[in-house]
Amino acid sequence: MKRVLNFYPGPSALPIEVLEEAKEELLDWNNTGMSITEISHRSKEYEQIHNETQELFKELFFIPDNYKVLLLQGGASLQFAMVPLNLIHEGETASYVITGRFAKNAFKSAEKIASVYTGASTEEDGTFYRIPSKNEIKIEKHSAYCHITSNNTIYGTQWKEFPSFEGIPLVVDMSSDIFSRKIDFTPIGLIYAGAQKNLGPAGLTLIIIRNDLIERSKDDLPDILSYKTHASKNSLFNTPPCFAIYIMNKVLKWAKRKGGLDFIEKQNNEKAKLVYGMIDSYPEFFITKVEKKSRSNMNVVFRLPSEDLEKKMLEEAQKEGIIGLKGHRSVGGIRISMYNANGIKEIKTLINFLNYFYRKNA
Amino acid sequence: MKRVLNFYPGPSALPIEVLEEAKEELLDWNNTGMSITEISHRSKEYEQIHNETQELFKELFFIPDNYKVLLLQGGASLQFAMVPLNLIHEGETASYVITGRFAKNAFKSAEKIASVYTGASTEEDGTFYRIPSKNEIKIEKHSAYCHITSNNTIYGTQWKEFPSFEGIPLVVDMSSDIFSRKIDFTPIGLIYAGAQKNLGPAGLTLIIIRNDLIERSKDDLPDILSYKTHASKNSLFNTPPCFAIYIMNKVLKWAKRKGGLDFIEKQNNEKAKLVYGMIDSYPEFFITKVEKKSRSNMNVVFRLPSEDLEKKMLEEAQKEGIIGLKGHRSVGGIRISMYNANGIKEIKTLINFLNYFYRKNA
Repeated sequence: MKRVLNFYPGPSALPIEVLEEAKEELLDWNNTGMSITEISHRSKEYEQIHNETQELFKELFFIPDNYKVLLLQGGASLQFAMVPLNLIHEGETASYVITGRFAKNAFKSAEKIASVYTGASTEEDGTFYRIPSKNEIKIEKHSAYCHITSNNTIYGTQWKEFPSFEGIPLVVDMSSDIFSRKIDFTPIGLIYAGAQKNLGPAGLTLIIIRNDLIERSKDDLPDILSYKTHASKNSLFNTPPCFAIYIMNKVLKWAKRKGGLDFIEKQNNEKAKLVYGMIDSYPEFFITKVEKKSRSNMNVVFRLPSEDLEKKMLEEAQKEGIIGLKGHRSVGGIRISMYNANGIKEIKTLINFLNYFYRKNA
Repeated sequence: MKRVLNFYPGPSALPIEVLEEAKEELLDWNNTGMSITEISHRSKEYEQIHNETQELFKELFFIPDNYKVLLLQGGASLQFAMVPLNLIHEGETASYVITGRFAKNAFKSAEKIASVYTGASTEEDGTFYRIPSKNEIKIEKHSAYCHITSNNTIYGTQWKEFPSFEGIPLVVDMSSDIFSRKIDFTPIGLIYAGAQKNLGPAGLTLIIIRNDLIERSKDDLPDILSYKTHASKNSLFNTPPCFAIYIMNKVLKWAKRKGGLDFIEKQNNEKAKLVYGMIDSYPEFFITKVEKKSRSNMNVVFRLPSEDLEKKMLEEAQKEGIIGLKGHRSVGGIRISMYNANGIKEIKTLINFLNYFYRKNA
C-alpha cells in the first residue's frame, strides 16, 4: 500500500487512523455482523451513532444550546436554495456579500426564489482578492438575513471575523473552513457546510440552525426542503447518508483525541504561517495578489512566473507523491489546500518541495 | 468477524464480494495512494468511475439511448419536489396513483408546488393491499405526467406491469425495486430511486430521464433543483456522493459477473416463489391480506396470529443471526425484504427458520 500527500481542495485527505478503523470494520461494524453501509437507519445501532455525531459536533465546535445540528444530503448547493426558501417571507429580502464563485452561486439561486440584494462585492477584473470590511456592507431594509461565504477556496480568502448586524442573523456557508477554528456564534443564525473538506466524505451536509430560525421557517414547503421537518424528525425524515455520518463520527473522535478545536486551530495557524512565510520569502516567484489580511488558512493560492513553470511544478510534485496542487480551472496556477487532516509534518514536507523547486527554477 | 443474514428494508445487505473489495482498497484505491473518499471529484481517476458507473447501469438495466442517467444526492424524497418543480408548467397538472405511504408523500410534496390530482388510490381502512388496474386510473386533463410507486415496501405490493397512457409520460419511484427486474421503457418519462436497496449505500439517488423531459424542464429553477443543470454538467454540478457511486460501480460489476439482469430477475422470481410458497402453506399462521397478483417480489409482509408470537419470532430470528424482519412501525408484523444481495441460499436458510418456528408454535 502506498499513500500520497493529498492537498486536494475537497474531497480531500482524511486522517489515516479514521480510514484504518473504517477498513477494519467494513464487513462487521460494532459486532453487528453487518457493514455500516448495510444497516437500517431505523436500527438502534445506527441511531446511536447518528445522535452521538450531533452531540460530539456540538461539544467540539462549541455550539450553543439554542442551535440544532442537522445532518442532511444534497450538498451546500442545496442550501443555496433551502436558505431563501425557508427564511425569506413575503415582503422580505436578504443581503448577500459576494466574495467568490460560490457566494455568487448562492446569490444566483436566491434570486430565483426572492428578490435579494448584493450587500457588497469584492469582485475586481472578474476575480476576487479580498474580504470586504464591515463598513462596505449595505444591509437592505427587511433583510431576513445577511449571507456570507466564510472561506473562498478558489481565491484563497477567508473572513477572519464574521460581521455582525443588529437584529439581522448571519447565514454562513462554511463549507471550506468549518471546524478549522473557533467562531463566535453571537451573530450566527445559520451555518451550512459540505462535510468533504474538514469532516468527512462527500455526500453529507451539515446545518447549524438557531431555534428561532427553525420556528420562523416557512410552513408551505415540500417536507424535504423544510428545516422544520428535518429538525422535528432529528434528520431522519428520509434515509441519511449513513456512511458519511459514520466517518464524520470517527473524524470528530480523532479530533478530540488530538486536543479538540484548540489543537486544530493552533495547528492551522501554524501551518498557514509556515506556508505564507515560504511564499512571502520569494514574492517574485510565488506571486499572489490576495490581500494579506484576507488570506485563507485553508487554501493558499498563487501563480508562478510562467504557466510552463506551473505545469512543471505539478508534474514534479506528482513524482514526489504530492497530489492536488492544481489551481481551480477558472483561475489557474497553484493552490495548496491544507485542511485539518494534513498536519505540520505534511506541510513541512510540502515546503521542502517548494523550496527545492524554487532553488532549481528561480 | 461474524456476518448475519440481513433482511433489512433498506439500507440493506450488499454483496460480500463488493465489501471485501472496498475494504481492500479503502486506504489506497486504484494505486492512487488515496482512499476513494479522499479524491477530488474533478480528478481523472474519479471521473472515470463516475462515467463508467453510468454506462454500466445503462447497459445492464437496458436503458434506451434517449435517456440520461443522473447520479445525485438528496434521496428519493428530494425527487418528490424536483419532479413537479421541473415538469409541471403553468396551466398543467399531474396525476398521482396512491398505493402506499411514499406515494402519498410524493403527492403531498407535489401539492405544495402545483395543483395535482389523485388518479387512483387503493387505500382501504388506512392501509393498502393492492395495486390498481389500469382502468381504475383517471388521468386528469393537461397532466404533465402520471406518477406511480413501483414497489411499496411497507405494504408488500408491486406493480407487475407499468400502466401506459397515450402521450402522458410515466414517472416512477423505483426506490425499492430498481434493478430487480427488466422493465419496458416505452411509457417511461422518468424513473428515480434511492440506491440503498438494490444498488449501494444510502446517499445516492438515481434519475433516469428521457431527453425530451430534460428539454422541457423549467428554466427558472435554482441550479441544484434543475434537471437541465445536472444533465448538462454530467451530474458534476456539485460534489457527488463519490463513495456511494464507487460502491454502486462494484455492485453493477458483481451483477454482471453473476449474469446480469437476466440472472437477477430469475433469482428474484425464484426467491419470491419460495417465500410465498411457504407462507401460503400455512395461511392461518402467516396471515396476509395482500392481493395475490399485487404481491411484491422485494418485500413480503405478513402478521402472525398474535403480537406475542411476532415478538418471539423476531427474538428467535435474532438469536439465529437473522436480522431485519420487523414490519414497518406503522403496520407492525413481519416483513421479509429480499433485495438482490440475498440469494437463494439465504432465502432457504430463512425458510428453514420460518418452518421451524411454525412447527414449534402453530
